[in-house]
Amino acid sequence: MKKIAVFTSGGDAPGMNACVRAVVRAALYNGLEVVGIRRGYKGMADADFIPMESHSVSDIIGLGGTILKSARFDEFRDIEWRKKAYENCVKEGIDGLVAIGGNGTFTGAKLLMENFGIPTIGCPGTIDNDLYGTDYTIGFDTAVNTALDAIDKIRDTAASHDRVFFVEVMGRDAGFIAMQSGIGGGAEDILVPEIPDTIDEVIDNLKKGGYKEKPSHIIVVAEGEEIGNANFIAQKAKEALPNLDIRVSNLGHIQRGGSPSAIDRILASRMGIAAVEGLIAGKSNVMAGIIDDKVAYTSFDDAINKKKPLDVELNKMVEILNS
Amino acid sequence: MKKIAVFTSGGDAPGMNACVRAVVRAALYNGLEVVGIRRGYKGMADADFIPMESHSVSDIIGLGGTILKSARFDEFRDIEWRKKAYENCVKEGIDGLVAIGGNGTFTGAKLLMENFGIPTIGCPGTIDNDLYGTDYTIGFDTAVNTALDAIDKIRDTAASHDRVFFVEVMGRDAGFIAMQSGIGGGAEDILVPEIPDTIDEVIDNLKKGGYKEKPSHIIVVAEGEEIGNANFIAQKAKEALPNLDIRVSNLGHIQRGGSPSAIDRILASRMGIAAVEGLIAGKSNVMAGIIDDKVAYTSFDDAINKKKPLDVELNKMVEILNS
Amino acid sequence: MKKIAVFTSGGDAPGMNACVRAVVRAALYNGLEVVGIRRGYKGMADADFIPMESHSVSDIIGLGGTILKSARFDEFRDIEWRKKAYENCVKEGIDGLVAIGGNGTFTGAKLLMENFGIPTIGCPGTIDNDLYGTDYTIGFDTAVNTALDAIDKIRDTAASHDRVFFVEVMGRDAGFIAMQSGIGGGAEDILVPEIPDTIDEVIDNLKKGGYKEKPSHIIVVAEGEEIGNANFIAQKAKEALPNLDIRVSNLGHIQRGGSPSAIDRILASRMGIAAVEGLIAGKSNVMAGIIDDKVAYTSFDDAINKKKPLDVELNKMVEILNS
Amino acid sequence: MKKIAVFTSGGDAPGMNACVRAVVRAALYNGLEVVGIRRGYKGMADADFIPMESHSVSDIIGLGGTILKSARFDEFRDIEWRKKAYENCVKEGIDGLVAIGGNGTFTGAKLLMENFGIPTIGCPGTIDNDLYGTDYTIGFDTAVNTALDAIDKIRDTAASHDRVFFVEVMGRDAGFIAMQSGIGGGAEDILVPEIPDTIDEVIDNLKKGGYKEKPSHIIVVAEGEEIGNANFIAQKAKEALPNLDIRVSNLGHIQRGGSPSAIDRILASRMGIAAVEGLIAGKSNVMAGIIDDKVAYTSFDDAINKKKPLDVELNKMVEILNS
Repeated sequence: MKKIAVFTSGGDAPGMNACVRAVVRAALYNGLEVVGIRRGYKGMADADFIPMESHSVSDIIGLGGTILKSARFDEFRDIEWRKKAYENCVKEGIDGLVAIGGNGTFTGAKLLMENFGIPTIGCPGTIDNDLYGTDYTIGFDTAVNTALDAIDKIRDTAASHDRVFFVEVMGRDAGFIAMQSGIGGGAEDILVPEIPDTIDEVIDNLKKGGYKEKPSHIIVVAEGEEIGNANFIAQKAKEALPNLDIRVSNLGHIQRGGSPSAIDRILASRMGIAAVEGLIAGKSNVMAGIIDDKVAYTSFDDAINKKKPLDVELNKMVEILNS
Repeated sequence: MKKIAVFTSGGDAPGMNACVRAVVRAALYNGLEVVGIRRGYKGMADADFIPMESHSVSDIIGLGGTILKSARFDEFRDIEWRKKAYENCVKEGIDGLVAIGGNGTFTGAKLLMENFGIPTIGCPGTIDNDLYGTDYTIGFDTAVNTALDAIDKIRDTAASHDRVFFVEVMGRDAGFIAMQSGIGGGAEDILVPEIPDTIDEVIDNLKKGGYKEKPSHIIVVAEGEEIGNANFIAQKAKEALPNLDIRVSNLGHIQRGGSPSAIDRILASRMGIAAVEGLIAGKSNVMAGIIDDKVAYTSFDDAINKKKPLDVELNKMVEILNS
Repeated sequence: MKKIAVFTSGGDAPGMNACVRAVVRAALYNGLEVVGIRRGYKGMADADFIPMESHSVSDIIGLGGTILKSARFDEFRDIEWRKKAYENCVKEGIDGLVAIGGNGTFTGAKLLMENFGIPTIGCPGTIDNDLYGTDYTIGFDTAVNTALDAIDKIRDTAASHDRVFFVEVMGRDAGFIAMQSGIGGGAEDILVPEIPDTIDEVIDNLKKGGYKEKPSHIIVVAEGEEIGNANFIAQKAKEALPNLDIRVSNLGHIQRGGSPSAIDRILASRMGIAAVEGLIAGKSNVMAGIIDDKVAYTSFDDAINKKKPLDVELNKMVEILNS
Repeated sequence: MKKIAVFTSGGDAPGMNACVRAVVRAALYNGLEVVGIRRGYKGMADADFIPMESHSVSDIIGLGGTILKSARFDEFRDIEWRKKAYENCVKEGIDGLVAIGGNGTFTGAKLLMENFGIPTIGCPGTIDNDLYGTDYTIGFDTAVNTALDAIDKIRDTAASHDRVFFVEVMGRDAGFIAMQSGIGGGAEDILVPEIPDTIDEVIDNLKKGGYKEKPSHIIVVAEGEEIGNANFIAQKAKEALPNLDIRVSNLGHIQRGGSPSAIDRILASRMGIAAVEGLIAGKSNVMAGIIDDKVAYTSFDDAINKKKPLDVELNKMVEILNS
């Protein structure tokens, strides 16, 4: 292996830059050349390559977003576009790829591998933490702390006005952000897709809360909650409990940005190095994750198809902590 | 004057606790007794008084929200309730009031004054900064920095994906938060109620932006913008420019919370002291503000009725800074 | 078991309040009474007990420091004082203890257990992360992020002036904070007690750095580094390389404070619940830690005497990441 | 005027990048060419010029430090070096200069003006706020908030251990940072060079504090305090009051870094625009400041030689707020 390429794809996550930096520096450390591909698979198809030197990644470890940019590129499902992308890589002399992203990113990489055999290793970069094969994904800890900071601020105003807030956080298919930010923020209730809830339970819980000395009440709702979104649930609660002062806050895209936390920077650095070392060692078609604080390579198949379970014991904690 | 009361009313704002602390400590410094009234005019009508000692306000200078809580109390428009409130004050031996809040708070205070003559001074506490008689209100600087931090985070993800974001910030009648956080966040456009805008101008500006090297684009929209809210404007923009990737983020109630900034703590402390010193000096029916870095007392009438202008020169800056 | 007591002891750490809250709420959830002991063993000897209700711990999950306070109490090494403390506990009807702290705290608890048999479980609360029997201690993640935030700020000014900074972080016996904040901050060198270093190596590394395009250089030094403290090493470096602009920053006590991170709040909550559940299940003389994301009880003996190793692979990363 | 240059010099301050951006964009807006000079006067003497386009300053408004870098360059006191710098400017076709920095920067600019007549306007960039001719300097508000955040953290640990902390903040000749961060942090005492203090007063104040319910005590000390530095004063206090647990924290260079606050970004933007507009209008040898929220040009002579007074009324507030 003489020259590798690195790219980011899918939704951006804080720490992607730290991972890009680690890939570049680890490649140089091991005597490889390295190029960046701008805007993921789109840039691969457009031959949007930029040579990366050590200084290309100076001082980016603390930046949110991704200097290599990301983009949707549905055309990549079409083998003709994948072929074009592959040929661009060959022309550029690229022997291996490091793909930083989530499920969709790895699916693209897997198809490219299967069609053309270019060695590829993935690094799990998504705030949602919904990837099998790693305890945490790059960006998750930062997103949780961003959501927590917002919940703390909402608690200030909720407590001042004795209000109920439904706070919607990201997580289309998974409740990891909701669960962690909810417990951290002392939420009175947390609604996630992994755990069946009903409107009646939410309302019962609100009624119970009303008798306590502390009448402010925060319910964290994951984007993918099956009852409905925060607005819908809040509306139902208002109808059932018209005396309560109920508000909704949807945290939205702030959860994707910001300077990465220590954990995300270290995680991203470890994974980036592991991806390069894996490629050199002849690994491919795998994701470089961290399980129980050790590097672990998981096949793209498993990373894509297996479901990472949410620890439901955490939900039990919510009940205990609100006693 | 022997005993005063302090309360917070209306929407809470970061720094209200710093102001409560200053009122309490300044009262004690001047040999006065001081009580807190919980939940504003509602607590006054309910005789919900709590004696305040020096330690009652220890370590609250950095807390968001208000330890005295706030509440809506529309009944206060009814003189019978005001009478009850006044009688409770008399029973408690209260000679003077410090009312921390905004327009509605001062209107209540003015009515109480006019009906029963109890000396009252207001401190401007509202994140919106829309009060005549003070350069800045308590909570404004913190809210601006909270909005700015959110815009910075949104910029990270907008730049990574070449996206356009409409970011809605608070300010029902005034564009102060929008203008300051927008300039601070390097916004490409800022829409405030004080300046007439049209959808066409917004779209033209977006088109111009599209030709530049940096395709991410952030438009900050004040809650009170006359064209419509951020969702509405974004919808119009999507229709006109379907190729752009346009998103909306409504920052919501996070802008009300959080630990106050240095400026808000100092401002609140100065105003709280000025209110107590004003009461002792025989002033009443006025708001204690800061103009050109000096304490200035403005009649409740002017504070309530006069409109604080937004510096439109700032809007000119937006154009220059996007050259 | 009918009534337990909780206290914090030793150096305070962010998240101790979250742990106190969890102990109180878990006790109430399980039908136990619970009291807080102020200022650790000193308060136990002085019978400084306060009854804890659910609302006693409302809204403290996000507060730094410890509402139960902490204190040095060397007299506790004397059995007479321990006897007094024990008798106060008996008088108060206390059946079990939860001790939140570090090595010294657990040593005191162990002696009390051995002398008088009162069931005790510890929760690891120390920013240093130097306790065997848990992957992370309460306060560590927050302290690392505080140090990282400081290093980021120092990087700004170092890069602007092409300066070298020696940044001293806490960790009297262990390099965990230094290693994590150093990697997160992109440090060019990290000096910890667990890894032998020499002044010559530090200077050689500085020389190498000087040839690179990015002349700013940050060396993170753990308090317990064996060569000497940051001032000493910086002095040696100045003598060897008089042309470099070398500065020192000792981060000091800011690392002990601040609102705990999400991880610290959750960790503290889990440990506090585990301590109470452990007591109820008849466990004692153990610390409730988290290993590989599962609750694990470790004997006080092991927690106190065994050394938690620093992952030296991390140091290898520093070299790779500076290629 | 056809082409101007911008540079930063002296100690860096958060917001300098926002000012550079404003100068570049305002120049382009007005049809001027603009170059950046790296490392201030040193770069001028070395002809280290870089052309600045609109995108050269994209996304720098929120970055700490200065992308143009800064450097000491004592040689500039020598007219031969100034001549060389001037000739480089002429060769580059530079008609006007914008100098961002403090006292030393303006002194250099003034000499260059007097010798060679190149039109120059300064923007006040220094965290110390010690410049006559502007209410606030670029970087001051951010530095105050950084110091305040540190003091809040120290308060957490001070309160937990009933400790006394002497916290040293920057300000070699002026107490602005100390006064603002001290009041904001609820300091029990603030020592600044502008107000005469004695060790005895400090100790008396500490004794008084000891009788209060809240035994933690924070004394903020400006770097330039005439009694001595924080270590010295703390040592004297320890000798006089051996029973107190007294600690010292020197905040150091973290105060120079970090993402600028909203106020600093806006201030820097206004000043940068005002500098360019001033040059175009034929102004020179002046600093562009903001007084009472309006742009004001002050001669370099006054900016350099006149002393900006600290509002001593603020010190009175400290006494009141600790009642």
